[in-house]
Amino acid sequence: MEPPARRPADAAAAAADPELTALRHSIDNLDAALVHLLAERFKLTESVGRLKAEHGLPPADPERERRQTDRLRRLAVDSGLDPVFAEKFLAFVIAEVIRHHRALGAGAR
Amino acid sequence: MEPPARRPADAAAAAADPELTALRHSIDNLDAALVHLLAERFKLTESVGRLKAEHGLPPADPERERRQTDRLRRLAVDSGLDPVFAEKFLAFVIAEVIRHHRALGAGAR
Repeated sequence: MEPPARRPADAAAAAADPELTALRHSIDNLDAALVHLLAERFKLTESVGRLKAEHGLPPADPERERRQTDRLRRLAVDSGLDPVFAEKFLAFVIAEVIRHHRALGAGAR
Repeated sequence: MEPPARRPADAAAAAADPELTALRHSIDNLDAALVHLLAERFKLTESVGRLKAEHGLPPADPERERRQTDRLRRLAVDSGLDPVFAEKFLAFVIAEVIRHHRALGAGAR
């Protein structure tokens, strides 16, 4: 008996498959590293948040954020990452951090 | 001559300063690592995008994304990261990747 005829999309997927699988495995390894580094980063920003709440400092620090953004844009260019994406990424992470800081500040009051 | 009187916020900032500086230095180191890993991740997803465009595969792959999300949520729990944030982070990165893939697909047509 003949195997069922493959649709063109299936054949294309099968041809691309071994290379795609290898690339995705490496992406998954990087994602695991990213998650673990982000976990450590949030531990540090939680300590920053506690310190700020204890000393009555504001949760957000625009001057610090400007310096971080400038630095990450430079590091992005050096490493071959789109600097616009690096800036969006930092803004995304900082928004989450400030949300945590505000919650800590509210808890300290 | 007396030094100018410090406002309370300045005094609080000064008291918190050495610990804050040390924490921020570690955050900056982690951010540099994150940017470099993200640069490598985008190189890999660019290869995935090229492969998909060559084989006429769709840019988005909801089943793959579901598996990635489930895995990253588990890794987040293991590493002490908020799994909701891990999921938001993956969605943020994948949205950028799909934007790149669509641009590559459009270029291949």
